[in-house]
Amino acid sequence: MQNYQKLVERLTKVDAMNAMTSLLEWDMEVYMPPGGADSRANHMAVMEEMAHEFFTADETGKLIELAQQEVAHLPYDSTEASTVRLASHDYQNAVKLPSDFVAEMSRVTAKAHHTWAKAREDSDFSAFEPDLARIIELKVKEAEYYGYAQNPYDALLDAYDKGINTEMVRATFDGHKPDLIALIADVSKVAGRVNDGLVRGTFPVDAQRAFATFVLNTIGFDFERGRLDVAVHPFEINFSRYDVRLTTRYHDDWLNPALFGSMHEGGHGMYEQGVAPELSGTVLGSGTSLSVHESQSRLWENIVGRSKGFWQWALPHFKQYFPHMSHVTADEMFKAINTVERSFIRVEADEATYNLHIMLRFELENDLLNGRVAVKDLPREWNGRFEQFFGIVPPNDALGVLQDVHWSAGLVGYFPTSVQYYEAALKAHPEIPSEIENGKFSTLLGWLNTNIHQHGRKFNTDELTRRVTGGGMDSAPYIGYLKRKFGEVYGL
Amino acid sequence: MQNYQKLVERLTKVDAMNAMTSLLEWDMEVYMPPGGADSRANHMAVMEEMAHEFFTADETGKLIELAQQEVAHLPYDSTEASTVRLASHDYQNAVKLPSDFVAEMSRVTAKAHHTWAKAREDSDFSAFEPDLARIIELKVKEAEYYGYAQNPYDALLDAYDKGINTEMVRATFDGHKPDLIALIADVSKVAGRVNDGLVRGTFPVDAQRAFATFVLNTIGFDFERGRLDVAVHPFEINFSRYDVRLTTRYHDDWLNPALFGSMHEGGHGMYEQGVAPELSGTVLGSGTSLSVHESQSRLWENIVGRSKGFWQWALPHFKQYFPHMSHVTADEMFKAINTVERSFIRVEADEATYNLHIMLRFELENDLLNGRVAVKDLPREWNGRFEQFFGIVPPNDALGVLQDVHWSAGLVGYFPTSVQYYEAALKAHPEIPSEIENGKFSTLLGWLNTNIHQHGRKFNTDELTRRVTGGGMDSAPYIGYLKRKFGEVYGL
Repeated sequence: MQNYQKLVERLTKVDAMNAMTSLLEWDMEVYMPPGGADSRANHMAVMEEMAHEFFTADETGKLIELAQQEVAHLPYDSTEASTVRLASHDYQNAVKLPSDFVAEMSRVTAKAHHTWAKAREDSDFSAFEPDLARIIELKVKEAEYYGYAQNPYDALLDAYDKGINTEMVRATFDGHKPDLIALIADVSKVAGRVNDGLVRGTFPVDAQRAFATFVLNTIGFDFERGRLDVAVHPFEINFSRYDVRLTTRYHDDWLNPALFGSMHEGGHGMYEQGVAPELSGTVLGSGTSLSVHESQSRLWENIVGRSKGFWQWALPHFKQYFPHMSHVTADEMFKAINTVERSFIRVEADEATYNLHIMLRFELENDLLNGRVAVKDLPREWNGRFEQFFGIVPPNDALGVLQDVHWSAGLVGYFPTSVQYYEAALKAHPEIPSEIENGKFSTLLGWLNTNIHQHGRKFNTDELTRRVTGGGMDSAPYIGYLKRKFGEVYGL
Repeated sequence: MQNYQKLVERLTKVDAMNAMTSLLEWDMEVYMPPGGADSRANHMAVMEEMAHEFFTADETGKLIELAQQEVAHLPYDSTEASTVRLASHDYQNAVKLPSDFVAEMSRVTAKAHHTWAKAREDSDFSAFEPDLARIIELKVKEAEYYGYAQNPYDALLDAYDKGINTEMVRATFDGHKPDLIALIADVSKVAGRVNDGLVRGTFPVDAQRAFATFVLNTIGFDFERGRLDVAVHPFEINFSRYDVRLTTRYHDDWLNPALFGSMHEGGHGMYEQGVAPELSGTVLGSGTSLSVHESQSRLWENIVGRSKGFWQWALPHFKQYFPHMSHVTADEMFKAINTVERSFIRVEADEATYNLHIMLRFELENDLLNGRVAVKDLPREWNGRFEQFFGIVPPNDALGVLQDVHWSAGLVGYFPTSVQYYEAALKAHPEIPSEIENGKFSTLLGWLNTNIHQHGRKFNTDELTRRVTGGGMDSAPYIGYLKRKFGEVYGL
């Protein structure tokens, strides 16, 4: 196992370099002074280029080949065989991209982040347009480097989640789109029965922070190995299972974004904190895919956080942080936080309409990559399609096409993959809602740790789904869950 | 200039790697969750080892040699000649240290930082002893790698500030020690005339932060290119002239540490922010030495911040942040903040006794490196010598040998070099005290920018001193300044 050991040593350095890039990113979004943007962009580009050069060096390829022979006799799910398998997979992907392309992408997106933030602040798409056009250009080039049969978008989806392609995503969405639209239509007929007035009001930021921290602590996010900070666009990032950073943003007149946003990011964070210690710092030492990640974040945000059972437990604590809410019942809270609304911002959307936001992005990204929509026409396209989907038109670009950070970071093909696994998770443990009424989150977290988190990247999305559910993807449990839940909320 | 260009490109990457190490350090001290310590230590070691390997590669040496020929005809102080000169100097030093030694030092000190912080919290030196012993062992090894004639301590001093050695430091200290001791003795005879009651009381942390920020802004620290955060042990660090981070710590019952600490770190920060833009990201793009750096920090902290003129300007503003101080006069404030006290903590010491704290460290470090004092005996040695110097004995290790972060970071030989240049700066501009009564800091900062800051590393300490003062080091102006100032405070 001599070459295997050498490979592992080499991969540890790659992991450290990736962790450093992540710290550069976290700091850029959370604490970096504005004047530091340009030099930060250069530093990130240097780091990513070096990491890419180091990883794609011939030496890595040779060690992988030699290690493959050494681990050939070991079981598929052994750490050794999995390490070599994933290293080989990553290597095959990485060598397709030239180092200077990686550096260029890094430089462009680091700069674009600030252009985007400013453009969003000013609600002025034209200020962001040149950078986004360059990013889309680079993403098409990236797709060409990876290679694809017909649709360049397939190459990007596959890079985020091995095995996912445009047709699969379309099939998933088509599978539940009619039911979802019917549900939303049913709800809208009786929209007057429920409103979110309770969670709109005065919620001091300090109390929100304290309550979110209390909730995260209780559900199992480990603050000895993590933090919660503020960022314009909330995200989770980590440098190892021992240092996991969450961010959120507070509105002092609206409870939902920070509370459910924190639980969402906390779900990502607990996944990373739950990776087995022996995988830390190795190529296996992180969550396996965006879709499994998003299944975890949405599980904690929605299935836990927006359930009646959760509020039966949480309400007495909640009232200590917000004494002016002392009159509220769990049932009222449950309805207020599950008010269905056709609204502009994805990350603030309710559970029923959320997937429509994703579908919109899926269609636009696919059209952008295939040249059917030009970047300069994006605001018009966004608003037109938004009206088709939601029946309302964003009054400005900040509430429309500029709302998400993702494109500025070069994340194209990210959104659609995020939906897949959530449905599988619900199929795997339909008992969740009843388990949490007494604030017993350790059973759930333990189940997730054992069945999902600890494996890190040992199993890909599909393998993990089959292990967990005994079958493949299936929309039915997800739609069934939504119908039951919103049936109860709206008395359908 | 083809090879020169290649060299510059290579050095830009080294600069980026150093900036990343600095960010890892900043984050470690300011925001990292405790559980992240071990993996952070590994990441830092990987980064430092890679940076060292990359810089000391034969390729760098070859490019330096070729570039030396290309710039041979250019003036000494041209950017090109200076770049090659400094690159060569750094390279000659760096190749003396093996990469695995650099990684080992990084790993040991990153771990030691946390051992130290915990030991300090618990005031338990024995918990820190094994790590410190290892660090001293490594520093002796480092001195051997660098090479020295008689005293290993010379090698370490020289690494921080080219040209400084043990005998020079001793001469400086001997030069003003009798005067300093005489001054402190004179003051102590009339100690009752002045006390610091005014600055001991209730100073809410938020108001302190706001006032420190206001002062830093006014004296010229650029918050568009910088931040002020909290750390256990205050420091300044930067990733370029565009991103300069200060830290401080607040006592809610004592004004001095955060206010003067912020001005001190702000002095470091303005030096880095003042480096010429065209030097940014190059081997010349930072302050030239610890001693010049410390001349800047102590200038802003003491000569500006603790002057009567400063308070004549600052007092009306101060009273807006601290309304309960509305009765105070500038003269009272001047005396309260310049109260001379034999106290335990260096960073909180007054201007008169400060150098005694440095002398103590100089002697101990010199004895440690030469094996005349064992690490395990440090608390006893510290306390014994402290009593000789100050006539008081620290009641515990937290107030004694454990107070400074430096040794845990492997900074041995750091303190003594810091004193040298301060004296030269005073000689260069004795007019400072009178310039600031009207809050006109731009004249002073402009002078420093032009004569010191902008040059970055183009000139070493000695060269800079000669350019600025027309002569070499000289203790007389420093002692004269102290005598005048404390003569006024104590009515001597």
